Amino acid sequence: MELSPEPPTISLEILQKHNTRSDCWIAIHSKVWDITSFIDEHPGGSSILLSYAGAIATELYDKFHAPEIITEELSSDKLMGYLEQSAEPIAAVDASQETVNAMESAFGETPLLESIISAQDFEKEARQRLASKTWAFYSSAATDLVTYRQNKELVRRIMLRPRILRNVSNVCTKRSILGYDSTVPFFVSPAAMARLAHPEGEKAIARAASNRGVIQCISANASFPLRSIISAAPESHPFFFQLYVNSDRSKTVEILKTARELGVKAILVTVDAPVPGKREADERAAQDVIVRSAISGGESSKDKKGSGFGRLMAQYIDKSLNWDDIAWLREVCGDMAIVLKGVQTAEDVMMAAEYGVEGVMLSNHGGRSLDGSQASILVLLELRKHCPEVFDKMEIFIDGGFERGSDILKAIALGARAVGIGRPFLYSLIYGQEGAEHLIEILQDELQTSMMLAGITSLEQAGPRLVNTQDIDHLVDNGERPVTRNDRRILSKL
Amino acid sequence: MELSPEPPTISLEILQKHNTRSDCWIAIHSKVWDITSFIDEHPGGSSILLSYAGAIATELYDKFHAPEIITEELSSDKLMGYLEQSAEPIAAVDASQETVNAMESAFGETPLLESIISAQDFEKEARQRLASKTWAFYSSAATDLVTYRQNKELVRRIMLRPRILRNVSNVCTKRSILGYDSTVPFFVSPAAMARLAHPEGEKAIARAASNRGVIQCISANASFPLRSIISAAPESHPFFFQLYVNSDRSKTVEILKTARELGVKAILVTVDAPVPGKREADERAAQDVIVRSAISGGESSKDKKGSGFGRLMAQYIDKSLNWDDIAWLREVCGDMAIVLKGVQTAEDVMMAAEYGVEGVMLSNHGGRSLDGSQASILVLLELRKHCPEVFDKMEIFIDGGFERGSDILKAIALGARAVGIGRPFLYSLIYGQEGAEHLIEILQDELQTSMMLAGITSLEQAGPRLVNTQDIDHLVDNGERPVTRNDRRILSKL
Amino acid sequence: MELSPEPPTISLEILQKHNTRSDCWIAIHSKVWDITSFIDEHPGGSSILLSYAGAIATELYDKFHAPEIITEELSSDKLMGYLEQSAEPIAAVDASQETVNAMESAFGETPLLESIISAQDFEKEARQRLASKTWAFYSSAATDLVTYRQNKELVRRIMLRPRILRNVSNVCTKRSILGYDSTVPFFVSPAAMARLAHPEGEKAIARAASNRGVIQCISANASFPLRSIISAAPESHPFFFQLYVNSDRSKTVEILKTARELGVKAILVTVDAPVPGKREADERAAQDVIVRSAISGGESSKDKKGSGFGRLMAQYIDKSLNWDDIAWLREVCGDMAIVLKGVQTAEDVMMAAEYGVEGVMLSNHGGRSLDGSQASILVLLELRKHCPEVFDKMEIFIDGGFERGSDILKAIALGARAVGIGRPFLYSLIYGQEGAEHLIEILQDELQTSMMLAGITSLEQAGPRLVNTQDIDHLVDNGERPVTRNDRRILSKL
Amino acid sequence: MELSPEPPTISLEILQKHNTRSDCWIAIHSKVWDITSFIDEHPGGSSILLSYAGAIATELYDKFHAPEIITEELSSDKLMGYLEQSAEPIAAVDASQETVNAMESAFGETPLLESIISAQDFEKEARQRLASKTWAFYSSAATDLVTYRQNKELVRRIMLRPRILRNVSNVCTKRSILGYDSTVPFFVSPAAMARLAHPEGEKAIARAASNRGVIQCISANASFPLRSIISAAPESHPFFFQLYVNSDRSKTVEILKTARELGVKAILVTVDAPVPGKREADERAAQDVIVRSAISGGESSKDKKGSGFGRLMAQYIDKSLNWDDIAWLREVCGDMAIVLKGVQTAEDVMMAAEYGVEGVMLSNHGGRSLDGSQASILVLLELRKHCPEVFDKMEIFIDGGFERGSDILKAIALGARAVGIGRPFLYSLIYGQEGAEHLIEILQDELQTSMMLAGITSLEQAGPRLVNTQDIDHLVDNGERPVTRNDRRILSKL
Repeated sequence: MELSPEPPTISLEILQKHNTRSDCWIAIHSKVWDITSFIDEHPGGSSILLSYAGAIATELYDKFHAPEIITEELSSDKLMGYLEQSAEPIAAVDASQETVNAMESAFGETPLLESIISAQDFEKEARQRLASKTWAFYSSAATDLVTYRQNKELVRRIMLRPRILRNVSNVCTKRSILGYDSTVPFFVSPAAMARLAHPEGEKAIARAASNRGVIQCISANASFPLRSIISAAPESHPFFFQLYVNSDRSKTVEILKTARELGVKAILVTVDAPVPGKREADERAAQDVIVRSAISGGESSKDKKGSGFGRLMAQYIDKSLNWDDIAWLREVCGDMAIVLKGVQTAEDVMMAAEYGVEGVMLSNHGGRSLDGSQASILVLLELRKHCPEVFDKMEIFIDGGFERGSDILKAIALGARAVGIGRPFLYSLIYGQEGAEHLIEILQDELQTSMMLAGITSLEQAGPRLVNTQDIDHLVDNGERPVTRNDRRILSKL
Repeated sequence: MELSPEPPTISLEILQKHNTRSDCWIAIHSKVWDITSFIDEHPGGSSILLSYAGAIATELYDKFHAPEIITEELSSDKLMGYLEQSAEPIAAVDASQETVNAMESAFGETPLLESIISAQDFEKEARQRLASKTWAFYSSAATDLVTYRQNKELVRRIMLRPRILRNVSNVCTKRSILGYDSTVPFFVSPAAMARLAHPEGEKAIARAASNRGVIQCISANASFPLRSIISAAPESHPFFFQLYVNSDRSKTVEILKTARELGVKAILVTVDAPVPGKREADERAAQDVIVRSAISGGESSKDKKGSGFGRLMAQYIDKSLNWDDIAWLREVCGDMAIVLKGVQTAEDVMMAAEYGVEGVMLSNHGGRSLDGSQASILVLLELRKHCPEVFDKMEIFIDGGFERGSDILKAIALGARAVGIGRPFLYSLIYGQEGAEHLIEILQDELQTSMMLAGITSLEQAGPRLVNTQDIDHLVDNGERPVTRNDRRILSKL
Repeated sequence: MELSPEPPTISLEILQKHNTRSDCWIAIHSKVWDITSFIDEHPGGSSILLSYAGAIATELYDKFHAPEIITEELSSDKLMGYLEQSAEPIAAVDASQETVNAMESAFGETPLLESIISAQDFEKEARQRLASKTWAFYSSAATDLVTYRQNKELVRRIMLRPRILRNVSNVCTKRSILGYDSTVPFFVSPAAMARLAHPEGEKAIARAASNRGVIQCISANASFPLRSIISAAPESHPFFFQLYVNSDRSKTVEILKTARELGVKAILVTVDAPVPGKREADERAAQDVIVRSAISGGESSKDKKGSGFGRLMAQYIDKSLNWDDIAWLREVCGDMAIVLKGVQTAEDVMMAAEYGVEGVMLSNHGGRSLDGSQASILVLLELRKHCPEVFDKMEIFIDGGFERGSDILKAIALGARAVGIGRPFLYSLIYGQEGAEHLIEILQDELQTSMMLAGITSLEQAGPRLVNTQDIDHLVDNGERPVTRNDRRILSKL
Repeated sequence: MELSPEPPTISLEILQKHNTRSDCWIAIHSKVWDITSFIDEHPGGSSILLSYAGAIATELYDKFHAPEIITEELSSDKLMGYLEQSAEPIAAVDASQETVNAMESAFGETPLLESIISAQDFEKEARQRLASKTWAFYSSAATDLVTYRQNKELVRRIMLRPRILRNVSNVCTKRSILGYDSTVPFFVSPAAMARLAHPEGEKAIARAASNRGVIQCISANASFPLRSIISAAPESHPFFFQLYVNSDRSKTVEILKTARELGVKAILVTVDAPVPGKREADERAAQDVIVRSAISGGESSKDKKGSGFGRLMAQYIDKSLNWDDIAWLREVCGDMAIVLKGVQTAEDVMMAAEYGVEGVMLSNHGGRSLDGSQASILVLLELRKHCPEVFDKMEIFIDGGFERGSDILKAIALGARAVGIGRPFLYSLIYGQEGAEHLIEILQDELQTSMMLAGITSLEQAGPRLVNTQDIDHLVDNGERPVTRNDRRILSKL
């Protein structure tokens, strides 16, 4: 059989004959590809491909890859033709009955979206319905989950001080974020591999966010190419992009070039994860296949430490990144704003201000990096205590444990410009785009209700007297003085 | 068939013939009404009426409406006659067997009232015996129940400092409240739709309260007309009335006029709920029918946010109500005292003092409005810390989480004039009037015992040295100082 | 049949004939009594007696009464004779099979005493093995058990600061208590009705305590007459006696006269219970019979508040007792020392010092009086903070929640002369005298080990540097200042 | 049968004939011994030996004794010969089927070592797989486990303050400990009787530790002779040795002489256990046989207090040891460094500095000595507060509750030179040497990750600004002032 400019129709019978390592065809979305030369380059390993040699692999492919990826990996001369229409249903079922079962059990009887009335409801559903490995990857945090839990708990322990008898007929939740309009003071925090929750992954979030006037910060480890995510929204809609600097700096330069071309407005440079945290649930949850980011190229496998997606995808990250690199970043970012994501002390916020970045994001990676690090809200209070001037020099963002409109209001009252919402968006994706929109609606509604009950009609009115932080004030770093000779030696070197 | 001055006897057979939308009769309490022209005006919707077209609806009616309401809604010429005595039993069972079952399962085997020895016992029984929707409506609080729980917990964490070797042979729990005598320093806090717990609802409470010399503050969303509740008690007995100001101010004027005519002594103007809080348990609990307040006209239905009674009944509330309206309120309230209910900060208590109201009620709506707002007892301590002079300017009331006589004593010792008891009275209604009386007796008995054990014989002796508040003092707002430029901007505008 | 000086032998057959209200005989410990005239005077009611008319009631009698009581109640001419030896076994089983069963299930398979290695072990066993009413009476505390739990918890939160490298070869736990030698710095706190746990009740404790050189404070509501308890120990052994002042003061005078004659060394006057606290578990647990103290005459029944032993036995207590009565007490106590039991504030300890009593016992009645009152250990710290001079003026005792040798050591280090141990002795009685001795041994052993590990060899070395109270220091009353006009008015009157 | 210089081969048949108390042979590791004269000297009692009279006891022997012990106890003339090769398999099974079963159930289906990814995982496995008595002995702590739990909890409540944008490409965990190189800032804390977890016991730890460059502090109650443990590692590898001073000082002299000869570098003198703490789980867990340390000779039995290994093995400890003995210790220790293990107050650390020891170990014996004593980490903070100069005078070690690399980092940041890891090594032994190596790898990996995430590359950079201790600072002893006359008397005598 020969290739013609017009790819021929291929019968299932013929496909099945090309089923060896030295002559290997595979059918995906009705296209038949010759993957013989690609088998050993497959990031997910060769064996999984060989098990589908001469067969239809659409379903499994869809579970782990964005549709566009295959055309990036294989040149067009590897397209052998189109599979006969009639062949598909039978073959698909034969080839991956188990996968079909697994997906059905995961995505079967979703309750009505309207019965979901809080971010926690989405989490509860996600816990039950996501594949266990996906749940482990999304929900896990470092070692003993201390920081993960403190993030939530300490925000809840801040009390609100509602004012009464204000005219709250008209309330507005709008917020300018790095100069861009947002209908709400929160944005989508970057969270990797959204496609594991829904085939449309980050693209579904992009559609939902743009529909609702919300800014999405795309994860460096997104499952779709940057272009396909951004083009899911109207051209005018602003996007931010999360960056992990690659040990191979040229790759970073390339990604940032693409981002700039696509009109990305700001880069959130991750600074809290030179190495990945130890996420035990993620390490323990077995994985059968390899996942791979369409942007960073970061991918997972299994080694003797376990099966941690988070750890394995992070191997490309440059551990040497330091303050001196800010100048270089500025250069390669062009006019995109720079925000340092993962700042965790007043000292470093002051450094960031000196280095002239547009913003910092107080974050501990959702408790996924260094367990025991201070809850984000404590860092916000630390800034108020030790360097309140930074609020006037740049925008302060925060994420970690925010689940309610009232949680968001507390951070705004304490000086945050906006709050990042991460995991809840991943969880909302079990309902696809509609789920993400519903989540935005819930949070905005909660925020609006909280504002009215607190007696304010715009976020500009939210100041520190709106909250009572007494229950956690004693936890704010007090700047322990050096007391030993060694302490003084260390401090003198900083 | 024609109407005569003497309404005729009507057979079940004839009733059943008038069973269409254009010719619709219905029998309630043996009276047969022509509701054809009313079907589309029914606050509960037309379908429920049509399902009883040509049938006996007494039981369902009784579950959700006060007996008087129908005569207010339908003119006397709609009364077609009286149903044959013999017809009723059979028809009633046919028409609403399900309702009967539900009611029986809810009100079946009540344990002996004398086995109930605490307010919590009533709650425990109510949880089991009330219809699940009613339980959800009564017991629910906003979002994560943080404020709801803190209300209770923080009162409990206040310690008592009993004095010894005082002659406590004669102890007296009397208290003057806004100038009116009360046998106890607590009153019935307004709580909506008591009829869902017992057919006699607020009337049963009125009888119990007046029998025991306790003041009842009638809910704006009571299930009976104001008149019928007040006339359940002897004429001399004082009542308070809770007000939600209606967006249609004329309705508020009308209600206040009625209240004045009925001799109501004080108006508790709700100021903590321009919009209802998000009570998730209430939203989730399904409802089959519509409930409607006989006073405010507030009513419930179901929308895409859920089935929240609290939220749906609140739609008439005026979100624009503000301090400038106090003058108008004073005017329309005449000589009735004005108490602001739902004040939550020292700042607003000072405002209230400036505006010259007779009292404020420190309340967060039982945790039902803004979750995360400060527990009521913390606000009481905040007043002591920041504006102790207000205690001499007006009466300070408090509610939220008070369940024990000793809880009440703590509030009195800290300067409260009286304490509102809300949900426990609703729960006590599973035993009707007798239950409410028993609750009063329990609380009074606990209070009296606590006083004697604390070494005092009258409430005038209860001062701040009677309590040790060290365990919660650190939670009292300390007045966070503005630290950023933005903070100062916000504060300068307040 | 006639009475002869030598009481005749009576057959079971004859006994059984006297089985009516007007002719009622009963056999107890082989003696047959005519109780016809006593039926209506029986503190436990007539019905229980009538149910044993003409039968053998030994077992039930033993469960609730001291053996001596019957001879105090019935004159010797009511002794009809001795039951035939052979009759007893059969008849006893017939008459009270149910009682026998109940007792067996309660006292059946006791684990070996040597497997009990802590006070909590005794409690655990007692919970399972005591009659449920007895357990409820012993273990219950007021309303929400807040004070009961705080008593224990706060002692545990005091940390120890062990010193090292001290020669601890010889360690001594001796302590002088009110001038009397004790092998240990703890004594038996008064606890009522020990006989419900074991037929020998307080007498078993007396034997154990005297064997081990421990002082017993006999409860005013003991189940045996004072004389029989005290004579269970060698004559030289010191006893204390707890007093509830009776509304009928002559009864108090009489009791104190007896105490003095019996050589009692000190009177612990209860001042924290002018009325009994509300012990809900006690109220709820049903009781079948009436119990009655052989000393105070206090007895229980059932009324509409419930079945609380504690409440019902307290009805004789004088609510008018006050500081002015101290002079009278001093007079009637003669040379017995006076200790006020249940002092709960620094203010009252200072009063006590002024009135010149020999000691105070910081106690909240084991959490059984006013729930919410300060844990005893907090009062001890309050004294250290506000009136340390009292430690030099009188002896300070403490009880409530002490279960470990290390708990006792903490109190001593903070200035207590000795610690009262109450409930654990009741629980130990499921093993009778041997149990009580074992408890003493456990506590002494724990204390001795704690002392050695803490680096001290005598209790005179236990000072405040031995403990770190930082975890509870913030709970110590700080003396809230009056802030309102009303506060000042109240304080000026105290 | 006569002994020849060449021990003869002995058949099973012959062995079995010597099965009486007066003629008792036993086979262990194929050697047949005449133990007739030893029966009554056996520390484990005679009955266990008699039950193996004329039989093969290899398995049971191995479970409780080091192989070398028997040659120390029996002279060579008691070796009767070698058992026939063929005899063993059958006989062994016959003789101790029950023991085989027990061991199999304990050591059967171990999960793959690579699935163990944390110290807690080892603990979880150990809890399930160790014999219940061994688990009780290893894991138990004193009375109510307060100190045991606080040790862990308070370390966790210290927060980390990670610094960002530092070049962390190369990170180094090396630490000098008392002048000796260690790859990590932790060492093996002494823990008794490792052989109960694995036949190779302390020798397996020695091999693992030396392979990984980690220092082992050998327990005074190790199951193998000191020589055999030390010779399991290469000669150059440094060891420390824990000492309990024996009431018979000559034994201590002898042990220290051996230690010196074997090249031990430092002696950790236990000062927190003049008597053993009361470890209730250990007392309760029944033991069938006696265990005996091959070093100290400490051994266990059962008495009326229970079966506590810890208590029973401690009977030889000198309770009179005090500061004056330091001079003697210095003399008998020669050039070995002296570290006081179990120091628990700033006062005693200052004393230690005065006495010129090389180091102190802040320890409460893993919560096994005096329950309620301060968590170790609090003592470290106490030193910083009250005597920071001691950090410059000697090395400060710490143990108790450290389970994570980040826990270790916190202690280093606060001034500790190194951290002792005790129980986790015992638990790791269920996998033998490989387990112990895996544990070291896990901890080192966690530490390294924590350092990189915290922004440091060597431990010399870890200072007090790396941690936020606010959550526990209030628990640090504040030095309660003497307030009573008695306080002052006590303090004046110290």
